[in-house]
Amino acid sequence: MSLESVFLPIQRDRAVPLHQQIIKEFIRLIDHGVLNPGCNIPSTRIMAANLGVNRSTVYLAYQELIAMGYFDSRPGSYTTVRKRPSTMTSGLPRVEGTLPWAKMANEQSRYLWHALPDYRPEPDTSNNADIINLAQLEIDSRLFPAEDFRRCLNRVLVNLGPPVLTYAEYGGYPPLREYLARRLQVHGIAVSSDEILITNGASHAFELTLKLLAKPGDIVITESPTYGTFLRIMKYYQIQVLGIPLREDGMDLEALERSLAKRRPLFVYTIPNFHNPTGITTPQAHRERLIAICERFQVPIVEDGFEEDMKYHGLVPLPIKSMDRHQVVLYIGTFSKALFPGIRIGWIAGDKECIQRMTAINRFSQISINSLSQVALNDFCREGYYDLHLKKMHRVFRKRMKIALEAMAEFMPADVAWTKAEGGYTFWVTLPKPYPDERTANTILLKHKVMASPGHYYYWKAGSKRHFRLSISNLEESRIREGVRRFGRALSEMLEKAP
Amino acid sequence: MSLESVFLPIQRDRAVPLHQQIIKEFIRLIDHGVLNPGCNIPSTRIMAANLGVNRSTVYLAYQELIAMGYFDSRPGSYTTVRKRPSTMTSGLPRVEGTLPWAKMANEQSRYLWHALPDYRPEPDTSNNADIINLAQLEIDSRLFPAEDFRRCLNRVLVNLGPPVLTYAEYGGYPPLREYLARRLQVHGIAVSSDEILITNGASHAFELTLKLLAKPGDIVITESPTYGTFLRIMKYYQIQVLGIPLREDGMDLEALERSLAKRRPLFVYTIPNFHNPTGITTPQAHRERLIAICERFQVPIVEDGFEEDMKYHGLVPLPIKSMDRHQVVLYIGTFSKALFPGIRIGWIAGDKECIQRMTAINRFSQISINSLSQVALNDFCREGYYDLHLKKMHRVFRKRMKIALEAMAEFMPADVAWTKAEGGYTFWVTLPKPYPDERTANTILLKHKVMASPGHYYYWKAGSKRHFRLSISNLEESRIREGVRRFGRALSEMLEKAP
Repeated sequence: MSLESVFLPIQRDRAVPLHQQIIKEFIRLIDHGVLNPGCNIPSTRIMAANLGVNRSTVYLAYQELIAMGYFDSRPGSYTTVRKRPSTMTSGLPRVEGTLPWAKMANEQSRYLWHALPDYRPEPDTSNNADIINLAQLEIDSRLFPAEDFRRCLNRVLVNLGPPVLTYAEYGGYPPLREYLARRLQVHGIAVSSDEILITNGASHAFELTLKLLAKPGDIVITESPTYGTFLRIMKYYQIQVLGIPLREDGMDLEALERSLAKRRPLFVYTIPNFHNPTGITTPQAHRERLIAICERFQVPIVEDGFEEDMKYHGLVPLPIKSMDRHQVVLYIGTFSKALFPGIRIGWIAGDKECIQRMTAINRFSQISINSLSQVALNDFCREGYYDLHLKKMHRVFRKRMKIALEAMAEFMPADVAWTKAEGGYTFWVTLPKPYPDERTANTILLKHKVMASPGHYYYWKAGSKRHFRLSISNLEESRIREGVRRFGRALSEMLEKAP
Repeated sequence: MSLESVFLPIQRDRAVPLHQQIIKEFIRLIDHGVLNPGCNIPSTRIMAANLGVNRSTVYLAYQELIAMGYFDSRPGSYTTVRKRPSTMTSGLPRVEGTLPWAKMANEQSRYLWHALPDYRPEPDTSNNADIINLAQLEIDSRLFPAEDFRRCLNRVLVNLGPPVLTYAEYGGYPPLREYLARRLQVHGIAVSSDEILITNGASHAFELTLKLLAKPGDIVITESPTYGTFLRIMKYYQIQVLGIPLREDGMDLEALERSLAKRRPLFVYTIPNFHNPTGITTPQAHRERLIAICERFQVPIVEDGFEEDMKYHGLVPLPIKSMDRHQVVLYIGTFSKALFPGIRIGWIAGDKECIQRMTAINRFSQISINSLSQVALNDFCREGYYDLHLKKMHRVFRKRMKIALEAMAEFMPADVAWTKAEGGYTFWVTLPKPYPDERTANTILLKHKVMASPGHYYYWKAGSKRHFRLSISNLEESRIREGVRRFGRALSEMLEKAP
């Protein structure tokens, strides 16, 4: 088939350039099967005459159609319609499952894929809006100073303009690092701004530590139980976690010393304040002994100060990092638990060389952290909004925790014990005997319209089923009391059913 | 030493609770050495009488001082001042360098630590503000629609309120994923929103691909040269990169087939549009052959569409992903190169299961991506600001690239060749003989007040020293022309000095 002429509805008075109209019409005719593969296209001379346009206009259109794969062109021969694969938009069905991703994925990523639905699953509560969620450690967003933060965003965008939207410095926005360095002094920590790396939240800081140090098979020592997300990311990095039993005043230091005498771990990970999940805060003496032990064995401490600013009862010693004269402590902080998590700002503070090494890793993996978030947060902090917000958070949660602990005393069945958190949002409930299994426990909880976090999520190895973590971070006062009441009833039922 | 009484200046009319005043004063006295370790503290009874306050107030203060490590308390004995380590704020010198981070760091992170200063180092230009930077692939921030974006931030914070500042959905903000799914149709790509994962920019998307698939020693095939940051992060993941020579129309497909016949790589990484560093765009026929080869060998393609939206000359075929009926293509996109990078939003689109697996990895490594950025960007795009901005970018860079290529024709020494980019910001300059070495090359460039990116940064193995990447992304028209003029003079000098 050869065409002597093609009717193309070209309009001279349209804003669209003529050559683009020609291109568009040819694509339409080809996509609709009016022009079939192999069919000859009129020469530019004939086409230009037919359309009454300049030949160079047609030439330009043809060149583009060749580049886009609609036309074929060989020297000394007709330009023809090319056979090309249909693009997905044409509605052709896809052939699924050609590549076996499950098989191609590496072993560690396969583990996380299975861990996601198992870890703190969200039960379907769509039919029942009245469920009280004591499982979630997200902060009540009604307390977020969104309006103040909005003002800061405006101020920095107006005053500093477009450069705020370019890449940030690899190590983080310098004024925010300086602010953090000064603010850490409140907690007795003396670091300079170049000993701080700003990260996408605390978990990113923890992962950078693993990226810096981890080799498959390495050991990390943690409290047992500990933060579940970090247990899982450590498994991804092929770390062997050694959990040291957590006592009332922190990890068992005799057990730690025995373990260190045997084998040197990458680091000791600890959450000294309002420990997640238990809510335990270690006393000063424990902190001193822990850092002395780690100094002696030359083992770094990764101190997770994720709720350092939530000391609303006082009664809390300064961070281990405040005593760190030998630079063995890497200190992780975040704005996610006292301010809000949606801007993903955390940090890690430690030995300058160590921080620079992490900065290099992050440069090649994510180039930089969100610049706008950092600049606006810096403004927010320096204008005093953060301190103001903390005062409000302290006032609110001092009261909420009091209500929670009073409700616990009132509603818990006999022989159930719980920790008394001196800050933060969580506490740890210990049952006199194990709950049946996770599924049954969750079913009973949901029947009583309450959710709590089963304790075995927080153990490296299949943990004891005698614990729940309760979190009051997302609940107002009346809901806390009612939630604890429901939880108490659910526990009673659970204990009856337990063997 | 034992104290019968301590003078504490307590004020009843202050807003600070009495027990906190007592705590503060004791800490002051201890920190100033007025009360020394071992010294007995008056009993709560005596202290309460002295101060004229309730005994329970004193008790509360003592409990807190014990918890904070200032007092020691043993049953049946006096409460004493405790010996405690000074915190860093007291100005005691730190003992540096206890831990050998260089030795403790794993081999891969040591590599990145050395790579950072070597990779595109920023010469000290502080003494000379007039240097024209043709090395940098950052976008001219004067073009950023900061004011429009500010309006979107305001709108979403006012209309949606504080929840915008909480964690985002693990896979990304659903409305933005839906927008992206629809927008990708412009480029012929048909994916649903659950086949898209939103990431911290394109490099994060690429790293998640490695995290999903990579095992030490695995092979990845790339064009040679290719994007330098990705080469370095692949080395971190212990990947062996096999670079297939890049020809005028894309990677040498015969060489690719020969290589695939020998050993199966993790994936083939390709940048079909405005290739970084060369600026080359592959034609439709090359794309079709590439996907056909990879389908045949069952090897995924990672298609980097980092400048998909910067097709300001037309003449560019649709992405390889648009022909992906067998789900072999993972398509990476970003807003960093057509909008702005400071909010760190990119994405990866591909097989649904593959995307879910990456989502799980990210859940345990960074929990979620910046929520505020995603929500505001979604608003920005849906209000039409992004399309509007692209029109402006196309207009501006169509002209800037034209000026650049005209200047090249005018100012390049004889026998120097360069690519003609059909979009994007970069092109590739080939010298008739190698430049002396990087340091000498940079010195000559700086002498002529211009910077360019030496080509060997973009090779896996010590690359040919016959290339430079020039980028016009950050320069206005007059600076482009002048920059190219200076670069031409620098090349002349370099070629004279070359052996």
